[in-house]
Amino acid sequence: MDTAGSFTNPKSLAVIGASNTPGKIGNALLSNLLGSGYKGKIYPINPKEKEILGLPCFPSLADVPDEIEMAIFCIPARKAIETAEECGKKGVRNLVVITAGFKEIGRAGAELEKEFMSVCDRYGMRVLGPNVVGFIDTHTPINATFLKGFPPKGEIAFISQSGAILASILDWSISAGIGYSKIYSLGNKADLSEVDFIAEAVDDPNTKVILCYIEDVTHGPEFLKVVAEATRKKPVVILKSGTSQSGALAASSHTGALAGSDLAYNTAFKRCGVLRVTNMSDLFDLAISFVSQPLPKGDRVAIVTNSGGPGIIATDRVEAHGLHMARFAKETIEELRSYMPAEAGIYNPVDVLGDAKTDRFNYAFEKVFKDENVDSIVMLMCPVAVTEPVDTARSLIEFSRRYPEKTVISAMMGGKSLAEGAALLSSSGIPCFSMPEPAVAAIAGMTAYRKMKDRPAVEDRITDFKPDLKTVKAIFYDVKRDGRLALLGSEAAEIVSAYGITAAPTIISQSPDEAAAIADQLGYPVVLKIASPKIMHKTDVGGVIRDLQTAEEVKNAYVNIIENVHRYLPKVVPYGIEIQKMMPKGIELIVGMTRDVQFGPLIGFGLGGIFVNLIKDVSFRLAQGLTSMEISDMIAETKAYSLMKGYRGEKPVDILAVSEVIRRLALLATDFPEITEVDVNPVFAYEDGIAALDIKITLS
Amino acid sequence: MDTAGSFTNPKSLAVIGASNTPGKIGNALLSNLLGSGYKGKIYPINPKEKEILGLPCFPSLADVPDEIEMAIFCIPARKAIETAEECGKKGVRNLVVITAGFKEIGRAGAELEKEFMSVCDRYGMRVLGPNVVGFIDTHTPINATFLKGFPPKGEIAFISQSGAILASILDWSISAGIGYSKIYSLGNKADLSEVDFIAEAVDDPNTKVILCYIEDVTHGPEFLKVVAEATRKKPVVILKSGTSQSGALAASSHTGALAGSDLAYNTAFKRCGVLRVTNMSDLFDLAISFVSQPLPKGDRVAIVTNSGGPGIIATDRVEAHGLHMARFAKETIEELRSYMPAEAGIYNPVDVLGDAKTDRFNYAFEKVFKDENVDSIVMLMCPVAVTEPVDTARSLIEFSRRYPEKTVISAMMGGKSLAEGAALLSSSGIPCFSMPEPAVAAIAGMTAYRKMKDRPAVEDRITDFKPDLKTVKAIFYDVKRDGRLALLGSEAAEIVSAYGITAAPTIISQSPDEAAAIADQLGYPVVLKIASPKIMHKTDVGGVIRDLQTAEEVKNAYVNIIENVHRYLPKVVPYGIEIQKMMPKGIELIVGMTRDVQFGPLIGFGLGGIFVNLIKDVSFRLAQGLTSMEISDMIAETKAYSLMKGYRGEKPVDILAVSEVIRRLALLATDFPEITEVDVNPVFAYEDGIAALDIKITLS
Repeated sequence: MDTAGSFTNPKSLAVIGASNTPGKIGNALLSNLLGSGYKGKIYPINPKEKEILGLPCFPSLADVPDEIEMAIFCIPARKAIETAEECGKKGVRNLVVITAGFKEIGRAGAELEKEFMSVCDRYGMRVLGPNVVGFIDTHTPINATFLKGFPPKGEIAFISQSGAILASILDWSISAGIGYSKIYSLGNKADLSEVDFIAEAVDDPNTKVILCYIEDVTHGPEFLKVVAEATRKKPVVILKSGTSQSGALAASSHTGALAGSDLAYNTAFKRCGVLRVTNMSDLFDLAISFVSQPLPKGDRVAIVTNSGGPGIIATDRVEAHGLHMARFAKETIEELRSYMPAEAGIYNPVDVLGDAKTDRFNYAFEKVFKDENVDSIVMLMCPVAVTEPVDTARSLIEFSRRYPEKTVISAMMGGKSLAEGAALLSSSGIPCFSMPEPAVAAIAGMTAYRKMKDRPAVEDRITDFKPDLKTVKAIFYDVKRDGRLALLGSEAAEIVSAYGITAAPTIISQSPDEAAAIADQLGYPVVLKIASPKIMHKTDVGGVIRDLQTAEEVKNAYVNIIENVHRYLPKVVPYGIEIQKMMPKGIELIVGMTRDVQFGPLIGFGLGGIFVNLIKDVSFRLAQGLTSMEISDMIAETKAYSLMKGYRGEKPVDILAVSEVIRRLALLATDFPEITEVDVNPVFAYEDGIAALDIKITLS
Repeated sequence: MDTAGSFTNPKSLAVIGASNTPGKIGNALLSNLLGSGYKGKIYPINPKEKEILGLPCFPSLADVPDEIEMAIFCIPARKAIETAEECGKKGVRNLVVITAGFKEIGRAGAELEKEFMSVCDRYGMRVLGPNVVGFIDTHTPINATFLKGFPPKGEIAFISQSGAILASILDWSISAGIGYSKIYSLGNKADLSEVDFIAEAVDDPNTKVILCYIEDVTHGPEFLKVVAEATRKKPVVILKSGTSQSGALAASSHTGALAGSDLAYNTAFKRCGVLRVTNMSDLFDLAISFVSQPLPKGDRVAIVTNSGGPGIIATDRVEAHGLHMARFAKETIEELRSYMPAEAGIYNPVDVLGDAKTDRFNYAFEKVFKDENVDSIVMLMCPVAVTEPVDTARSLIEFSRRYPEKTVISAMMGGKSLAEGAALLSSSGIPCFSMPEPAVAAIAGMTAYRKMKDRPAVEDRITDFKPDLKTVKAIFYDVKRDGRLALLGSEAAEIVSAYGITAAPTIISQSPDEAAAIADQLGYPVVLKIASPKIMHKTDVGGVIRDLQTAEEVKNAYVNIIENVHRYLPKVVPYGIEIQKMMPKGIELIVGMTRDVQFGPLIGFGLGGIFVNLIKDVSFRLAQGLTSMEISDMIAETKAYSLMKGYRGEKPVDILAVSEVIRRLALLATDFPEITEVDVNPVFAYEDGIAALDIKITLS
């Protein structure tokens, strides 16, 4: 955003609606500003006061004899518009609108918000809110919220669409001693949103990790662009709650039905490298780990424990998260064997046993940290017998410093008897949990982020393919003029053919003789299908006859279909009958497209055929900017891939040709935003090439 | 066990290896016993001491002038056997063997343990351990462990196979003020195991919930019996770690390959109503909820919150757990609307807004508790603005008392500012978490338990079916005499037919003419298959020819198959060629069986055909005692069920006939323990009846 770098560090600000009355927001906020050590100029505005909390108070903005960079609104909603006008005239750049009573209260509020924003837009003012608790920057420092407490300095930026969650986290963090760089309350996101503050936090040298709690994304394309860049520099961890309200995920196609409500977010987050968590604990467990430990170089985890049970639990979790238990070098194993008691575990987990004092832990650390096959170390301690939690913590801290490239996480499982050791670890930059599971989950999240960070830059689209845009435009023109949204099969076949996707030849005919002539030309066998945008289930009305071998059979079938359809649907006037060349059977796949309001077209791929909704073997990606690697991944994620590679001795099919279908359908979907849904089901995949059979295209 | 009711309350006990040296286990344990308020007689045994911790010490057991009910071993392993002999001679009933150095250290230890147990068995002594930290009963009271600390009295029984986890939990619980009824360390489980202590805890009036951490189950059938009874009375929550070591889950059949390593445990736990959790936090979150709140009457959850975000998060979790958001009565909604501010949420979640003091919470509680459509209430509080955590907690406690049948769980999301309110809730029997997710998870676990508790009693097996046991025995006799483990297809078809499962008629022939005669008799078309236990993949060696329509075709096919097989496998002498009547195609299902060492035969059911390993749509149950309801459930869990009910306009198939296949295969598997694996794939299901086609049976 154009306020980047200065939003949280204004030279001067006005608190409009500042108050002398304790308990009022305008009092709490001003008091926080003063208490936070903010170095800029503060101008309280209140027509009824001369002085507030020791600062001279001005009756209005116009009376302030100075430039004002930021205005913070602590006034009733009904005064918002006139105050915005005053801000605009005064040349204020940024507004923080604490004021509630806008979109969140219903239609009247939404209209007020719209009007308010039109004033702000007119003056080019950027707005945080309305309906926010404010923001904090511990490094400026500034506390522009009305909440109690100011967190310690730290390297976590926290962006929250819920003010209450922000209040909870602040309260909890202060008790737990967790520090932040910046904290933003997003409120109604009338202007500035998570995208702007993610961008700001990426450029902020004091921020190492960006956390978001959001309920929706309001600027899909910008989000994708900004966050994809952000995650190459810093981890972005998002807790997204609420099921998607996106009405654009229509369910009339197979692809749309499979996409479901939350899929667009998952797909978008995957695209731009966001770590999505599903609960609040994970959000902060990960944050603490990111700020205090280096990213794991790889996914090989070593566990050092003083007891078997937690070691087994942790090993289970390592496997469940798709990480790997490190296989120690021969030397490591020999050294461990030479020193440890016979009953100790010397492979991985290293179980130093319940009677281990620090010396045994220390020896294990030394060997395990040294081992080049180890990327990260999880230390687990139970309070058994002779445990020395503080000394052992010191030893772990020492090795962590000596091997700064290795990721170290710990779990001290117990209460008071381990508390001092646990506190020492935490304060020395080694995250310390109370259970083994979150320790391993933290390693898993960090490893996942490392992989995302290292993902190759988005490739250029393959440009040597030129679709026949004229054909597509001409067909869409005709369809629209015909007052239809659904394309006929023959039209849909022409569309995909124009994008270089091999479709079973499909031609519409108006008479038995024409049908026979077309069949002669296509070659037998053929299938005849009724052509009508009004008939959804052609087979059910006797509208499809397959496997026709001669001109005579085609003519008879033509008459039969017309009769059948007339009997079932006497009012429908068909467009004719489509003759489709029957293709040899291949592996049945589906490639489809559905469209999300925020993130645009989603491409789906998976096992096709009549069981597609039953098996639900479909993977999705965003069509916009789809890369070859994403296509490979989406194919490899499906069960269809096992078939394609050659299942049970069959020959593999032409995976490259299938990839091209996906790529070109994505291209079609992005070239023509009026396409709302596509189902190509089945696509037959062969040893050599593919054929698209049933193609449904719907326009908006 | 025969010690039930007295194990943790012995009249007299001896501490063998008691010591005056602080730091020694024999000192710590005796000191704990004395400190715990144990009322029975304690006899320290140590030949080198006259008095220990104020008690007279005896040189040996034989010297004690009294009966001794329990002996606690704090001696080195090498002395264990002679000491066991002494205990036996003295008439000791129960041994608690703290001593380590047995099975856990390897082969020598395992042999020692075996020898030790043979002495104990000879005297009929029951053994806890070896390699345990001991046990605790807070109500006796007795602390027979060497751990630090004694937990408060409570209603949680905790049984742990890991001594270290027990130590951790004890330490943590004492810090957190969580009480226990009984705590057992299981150690090597040479004799007494989780089964015995679950049984004891069920009968214990002081225990409301039973928690277990286990790494394996050693007495499968007993576990199933005891725990199934236990869970009808009290919840049993188990954290089972470690992947199954069970070598009996062989992977040579489809069913076996799909069963995987952890499936037998999941299936067994499901059978006997265990709540399985996957991490330690869940174990204790659930325990606290079970001891302090009533079971939910149904799955309708109301949420009362002072902020939207956490309300959304909780709603997401309610849906994710398969619970339902309560739909309030009209009256409730009207009353809420009449009182709450316009912006408040009055449906569900009830959002009393950030500026709510106790009065608004109180009003919401009143209406929501009163509503008969609400089974459980989750209260969420963020520390915003004017929050009154203590007063609001008091209000919630009051309503919880007034409506004792409703389940109430809370989450106070914050730190110090909510701590007093949170502590008040916890101490008043309303579990209070710091995040919304575990609060909803607790409701979900309790609801799941209520459903399991209410499950109908196991039905009697249907007895009006009499399998033809003679035929099965005769075939198995022949197969074994032939030195084979794999049955021929024709034999397998006879086996399942003997259990009333319709198999495609399959008869073996020794010559082209005989084959043609059999085909004439069966009716055409037929398929010919090479019959040989040595040929796994018959199609690959040209050993299968389908769709034969005449006697002539059958004779030719016979010769061709013999030639094909001879060419590929010149050394194999086939048993002949099987003629199978070709059956009309139906829905392809698989019914199979694999065997687990602990829990016996597992029956699998799902989508069959050649893609069975690809689609992996198979549900499992224990064969032993399989009920009609379990069969219905296992069918309904699969995607195959959608097909069976009539997918996309098809007619439904004969689900009853399919159920019978499952039931009878289960019966076969339990009747004949020598069957290690069965695959019936495909079973064709028709509108009327079924046909079993390819049947593979393997014996041990």
